[in-house]
Amino acid sequence: MYAITIPEPGGPEALVWDEVPDPVPGEGEVLVEVVAGAVNRADILQRQGFYDPPPGASPYPGLECSGRIVETGPGVSAWAVGDEVCALLAGGGYAEKVVVPAGQLLPVPEGVDLKSAAALPEVVCTVWSNVFMVAHLRPAETLLVHGGSSGIGTMAIQLAKAVGAKVAVTAGTKEKLDRCAELGADILINYREQDFVEEVRKATDGAGADVILDNMGAKYLDRNVQALAVNGRLAIIGMQGGLKGELNIAALLGKRGAISATSLRARPLSEKAAIVAAVREHVWPLLAAGHVHPVVDREIPMPDAAAAHRVVEESGHVGKVLLVAP
Amino acid sequence: MYAITIPEPGGPEALVWDEVPDPVPGEGEVLVEVVAGAVNRADILQRQGFYDPPPGASPYPGLECSGRIVETGPGVSAWAVGDEVCALLAGGGYAEKVVVPAGQLLPVPEGVDLKSAAALPEVVCTVWSNVFMVAHLRPAETLLVHGGSSGIGTMAIQLAKAVGAKVAVTAGTKEKLDRCAELGADILINYREQDFVEEVRKATDGAGADVILDNMGAKYLDRNVQALAVNGRLAIIGMQGGLKGELNIAALLGKRGAISATSLRARPLSEKAAIVAAVREHVWPLLAAGHVHPVVDREIPMPDAAAAHRVVEESGHVGKVLLVAP
Repeated sequence: MYAITIPEPGGPEALVWDEVPDPVPGEGEVLVEVVAGAVNRADILQRQGFYDPPPGASPYPGLECSGRIVETGPGVSAWAVGDEVCALLAGGGYAEKVVVPAGQLLPVPEGVDLKSAAALPEVVCTVWSNVFMVAHLRPAETLLVHGGSSGIGTMAIQLAKAVGAKVAVTAGTKEKLDRCAELGADILINYREQDFVEEVRKATDGAGADVILDNMGAKYLDRNVQALAVNGRLAIIGMQGGLKGELNIAALLGKRGAISATSLRARPLSEKAAIVAAVREHVWPLLAAGHVHPVVDREIPMPDAAAAHRVVEESGHVGKVLLVAP
Repeated sequence: MYAITIPEPGGPEALVWDEVPDPVPGEGEVLVEVVAGAVNRADILQRQGFYDPPPGASPYPGLECSGRIVETGPGVSAWAVGDEVCALLAGGGYAEKVVVPAGQLLPVPEGVDLKSAAALPEVVCTVWSNVFMVAHLRPAETLLVHGGSSGIGTMAIQLAKAVGAKVAVTAGTKEKLDRCAELGADILINYREQDFVEEVRKATDGAGADVILDNMGAKYLDRNVQALAVNGRLAIIGMQGGLKGELNIAALLGKRGAISATSLRARPLSEKAAIVAAVREHVWPLLAAGHVHPVVDREIPMPDAAAAHRVVEESGHVGKVLLVAP
């Protein structure tokens, strides 16, 4: 088969479409013929040499895909050859075929086409596990989402609205904020022109955000704590603004607040399977009912993954950038 | 009645036993004739002028007491005059009488004498709400308790052992560590001579602590994150080592860790009542069965509260220092 390989870490041009051996499904795994993959920021870090795949994972980038099962390994009974699926991956989604642990497979939701389903697994699992399983966002609470127009952001807005929460978002342009509003966001904050702490307070009668989903890490740590409501929960899932920041413990304690920091990729199979099962139970019906949908910015042929990385690195997109297999 | 007043903030001598008006129970409150109160570090901060009582609370120090109900306000049906109780207070425990919201009353547990029951409410509610309700310590997990010989520490050791967890403690002397061992602590760390990160790792095959109960704040923040296990939870309840510290977000994220910071005193009545109800359900049976007991260092007459503060400030005690009403 062909896959995007990274012979040497570097810029987008480091991504090379090359012939590689077909992967073979083991116990409890299936082989999926990939129809589409999708780009995540972690793929860019991997390309740059900053984020090696966890032990045992495919060396090729790609944390999610959609496609058809073409082979099942021993011990797989819930899935069959021919099933149309999407999948959460520890790597290998930028390829014509990928091996997937059965616990990380999801059926293509009703009403979603097979290609677009590639835009779902990583964002849905990330948002559900952080905002709902860890931070327990409840109806009528306020969620603040940084990077509201990102893949994660567009899904977080929709899921939070679907459960009856109020949603505030930050983004860098009016166009992106307009897209967030179309998806249901209630409070629109242009981070280039406005202070999100002040805007969130104003829009919540001074209360602050009950849950914050953050991709900035250090740069926003202090202001995120300031923006939290009493009993608020800050869920950090990215560190685009740095790895170490000063924590005002007194401010956090005054709010009886909590901070969590997680990633999906490094979790053991059992935890991934538990998240995927929860997503199938809680989010798949929302997709089938049309309350939530994948947001696809554009499709790019997989061999030209470099072009897709450039789009994401320039942050010109809204939602997910898909890589379509040839 | 008489109460300990603080005419001017300052050292232990700022505590003055003086005649003051009797408090009057309002709707949903009872009046308790105090048999004993107990000293908490927050009382010292209040004496120093750093920790004012929350709005509506008694101006006198004292966050817990035991005694007898001598009057019930309107709307109180579950308690009667003559009941022997202990209580979680927002203030006013250093006094002959104190008004208590009914939701913060607990019966004196079977097998515990009325005076010693004053040593229970604050530590049991703090440990239960943080270690179990927030950080969800589970059987076979490892809890690290800083200040293992403190009032909080001695209760945390016992409760964690009672649910089948492994317990590591830090303390500053061999004598204190010996007392922790008597209470069931498995891993004894002298923080003056040993590095707790290294010792916890050694004792857990490199895994680290699943839950850490911390009273040091900034000073231990970085090392606490280092000492956490994967999926570990750091519960901060004090800031004896400073209010602001550098958080290594990358390290926290690598462990999928969480940090919470809470206090009891400022919580609304409904949250305090929920904690008290949980404690009565889960901890009171352990006290009645003798699996857990109050640890009382010494009793000091309430008018001499200054002497009690000196003991706690010098950290010469193990467990709780009681103030016995005249």
